Amino acid sequence: MTDIKCLSTQDADFQARLSALLAWDSVSDDRVQGTVAEIIKEVRARGDAALMDYTARFDRWAPASAADLELPRSRLARAWAAIPADQRQALETAAERIRAYAEHQKMSGWSYREDDGTLLGQQVTPLDRVGLYVPGGKAAYPSSVLMNAIPAKVAGVSELIMAVPTPDGELNELVLAAAHIAGVDRAFAIGGAQAVAALAYGTETIPGVDKIVGPGNIYVATAKRAVFGQVGIDMVAGPSEILVVCDGGTDPDWIAMDLFSQAEHDEDAQSILVSWDAEFLDRVAASIDRLLPTMERREIIDAALKARGALVLARDLDDAIAVANEIAPEHLELSVEDPESIVGRIRHAGAIFMGRYTAEALGDYCAGPNHVLPTSRTARFSSPLGVYDFQKRSSLILCSSAGSAVLSRTASVLARGEGFTAHARSAEYRGEDAS
Amino acid sequence: MTDIKCLSTQDADFQARLSALLAWDSVSDDRVQGTVAEIIKEVRARGDAALMDYTARFDRWAPASAADLELPRSRLARAWAAIPADQRQALETAAERIRAYAEHQKMSGWSYREDDGTLLGQQVTPLDRVGLYVPGGKAAYPSSVLMNAIPAKVAGVSELIMAVPTPDGELNELVLAAAHIAGVDRAFAIGGAQAVAALAYGTETIPGVDKIVGPGNIYVATAKRAVFGQVGIDMVAGPSEILVVCDGGTDPDWIAMDLFSQAEHDEDAQSILVSWDAEFLDRVAASIDRLLPTMERREIIDAALKARGALVLARDLDDAIAVANEIAPEHLELSVEDPESIVGRIRHAGAIFMGRYTAEALGDYCAGPNHVLPTSRTARFSSPLGVYDFQKRSSLILCSSAGSAVLSRTASVLARGEGFTAHARSAEYRGEDAS
Repeated sequence: MTDIKCLSTQDADFQARLSALLAWDSVSDDRVQGTVAEIIKEVRARGDAALMDYTARFDRWAPASAADLELPRSRLARAWAAIPADQRQALETAAERIRAYAEHQKMSGWSYREDDGTLLGQQVTPLDRVGLYVPGGKAAYPSSVLMNAIPAKVAGVSELIMAVPTPDGELNELVLAAAHIAGVDRAFAIGGAQAVAALAYGTETIPGVDKIVGPGNIYVATAKRAVFGQVGIDMVAGPSEILVVCDGGTDPDWIAMDLFSQAEHDEDAQSILVSWDAEFLDRVAASIDRLLPTMERREIIDAALKARGALVLARDLDDAIAVANEIAPEHLELSVEDPESIVGRIRHAGAIFMGRYTAEALGDYCAGPNHVLPTSRTARFSSPLGVYDFQKRSSLILCSSAGSAVLSRTASVLARGEGFTAHARSAEYRGEDAS
Repeated sequence: MTDIKCLSTQDADFQARLSALLAWDSVSDDRVQGTVAEIIKEVRARGDAALMDYTARFDRWAPASAADLELPRSRLARAWAAIPADQRQALETAAERIRAYAEHQKMSGWSYREDDGTLLGQQVTPLDRVGLYVPGGKAAYPSSVLMNAIPAKVAGVSELIMAVPTPDGELNELVLAAAHIAGVDRAFAIGGAQAVAALAYGTETIPGVDKIVGPGNIYVATAKRAVFGQVGIDMVAGPSEILVVCDGGTDPDWIAMDLFSQAEHDEDAQSILVSWDAEFLDRVAASIDRLLPTMERREIIDAALKARGALVLARDLDDAIAVANEIAPEHLELSVEDPESIVGRIRHAGAIFMGRYTAEALGDYCAGPNHVLPTSRTARFSSPLGVYDFQKRSSLILCSSAGSAVLSRTASVLARGEGFTAHARSAEYRGEDAS
């Protein structure tokens, strides 16, 4: 029997206990910071030579030359051909659905013309070159390759470069197959902070990119933070989380399994259920107790539920929604009768899974929306990874002579108010000419 | 006579000289990092008390109580009423135009339904609460208040909190007036890393926010980087830059003044002109020499042009466009006869000013598009500040029972391929029920 915490929003110390439960600090310590800073410095200074040294040291694998760091596209194609047919079919279906959803996200430019002929607008362009970091070893997930790569290609990124470490020279065939179907352009068998540094600054062999995305361990995350500015980065993710809001009408075994599916990621993962049906909470607790011993990853699930899980009794639906907005969860299941009537009241969530049939796991793999989502309450200010993360905007301004004459008067007053007389005179030149 | 550098794209060392010219490293040193870390720790631990201490120490101003840190809305309104009428009119015109442009950027949600009834989509919501940092003293710009505040209000941010330091207790009336017209909800006379910490974590008096935007000195920038994750932040800006591409048909005095308008910001600002008309470059150089002595901020302009300015001779239009895409400038002027025919070939730029009449200075104040733009080549991967920076997306997934039956098969194969059996079983439960 697991010791998942039971809370009630009516408890006097509910806010404090909830805050304690949600608390997460991802700060890397000084030792990690120092190691990463050293690695970046070395890769910037010595390029391929440093990359080869670190690969030999951390991945225990010595390429004969820097050119051997590259995994040719034919190698990815071979992996694709060699995996079992059902996995190939599943990757293909998932890729198609992720691509179809991503197409809806693609931004377009726009412009409008004012009465005096002045044109204002926004031009949208893809990033030129993107680096995709993929963890090696046991944490290598083909689904993650699809989710990071496909939106970039839909955006129109012309070169997508994958970095995947091969600890002890070992490759993950499913990851290579996913890279093949997702349209990865070039792949390199490099990892860790050295891969991030190589992608950010370029080496003789590794092309420098404009943005780096993808999950990684604390060294990778610290390196991404350090090179931010030189290149763009995606969010640095915390542990994965789910919040299930249930009206009590869903099979408690299903809900227990949804909580498990989050908890099985790792011991820090967070699974919380909120309901206003106290008896239902008891039934889910019973399902947890009955099903947990049958789970392959029961030790991890048990540890995660004990440390960071909770069953929360709310007063009513409104109260449950307030808890959801406070938590701003990465994954939110609205396992209720009429989810569409309440979804508009959810102010913060990475992805919202509506109705009893929408298991969060479907979204992890193949529903279509991205599984790279804001964690640790960052859904308050950030969004799922999407095509828009691989596009950028340029403002467009084309003043007619009449338009510039009008605008120059306003600009001149404000510029002089700020003490910027070159700004003022630059504007005034155009105004004088037009009038 | 200024010593602006003259380069040609045909020079053997052109790439190296251009790279040296563009190089900018904004890394804050260990001392700044340490000071900022200490300030954040203190504000988190002691709240208002720490904020009052730092305000007394850094701004040489001792509020009687923490409540006195607040600048009431009536104070902003009083500033608005007291400034000269032409400035009030100019701020009003600028605010209206910025708002009109911003309305075009507002994102909306969308959804689509598949044949089996499954719904996919994206819900868009505003951030709840945003902090706007405004520098105090001589670097206080009312235009910057408008540019940061108005997109947030257009996005629907319900509470916009301004922090503006008052060194020696001195207030900038134009800044307060701009805050009034821009719709700032609450304002506090706090600044530096302590203001960033207070906005990020909240104190007894200062409400914690979800995102912090706005420019600041190296302490503010370092603090923003440090609290990133706890809250969202905008880009940390480098020195301002302009690249002018001119076909030789614009008055060289106008172009010289455009270069000055960038250079007058500070000694690190960057002004570069590219043309394929060698004689025109000479004429602009002559205009620079003639006009520079007449400029109020000539020392700053001269220093900036010497250190980081350049006149670049390109082979032709194509070559000039290649230079522009390499530089990825914050501001790009296409001062050419038919800018609309070439703008589609610009791959990276924060804002593009098209035609001879579109002085960049018009965009700084009142054309409509935002003047907060990606600097230091970050236009390769980022965008102007906009309404979209104050909105976020949540993915929507609602599977029909038929839809979940189909998806669960794919999810199950992929989840088992990754060793996640709770994911697989969670998906399979739904599939079994539906079939």
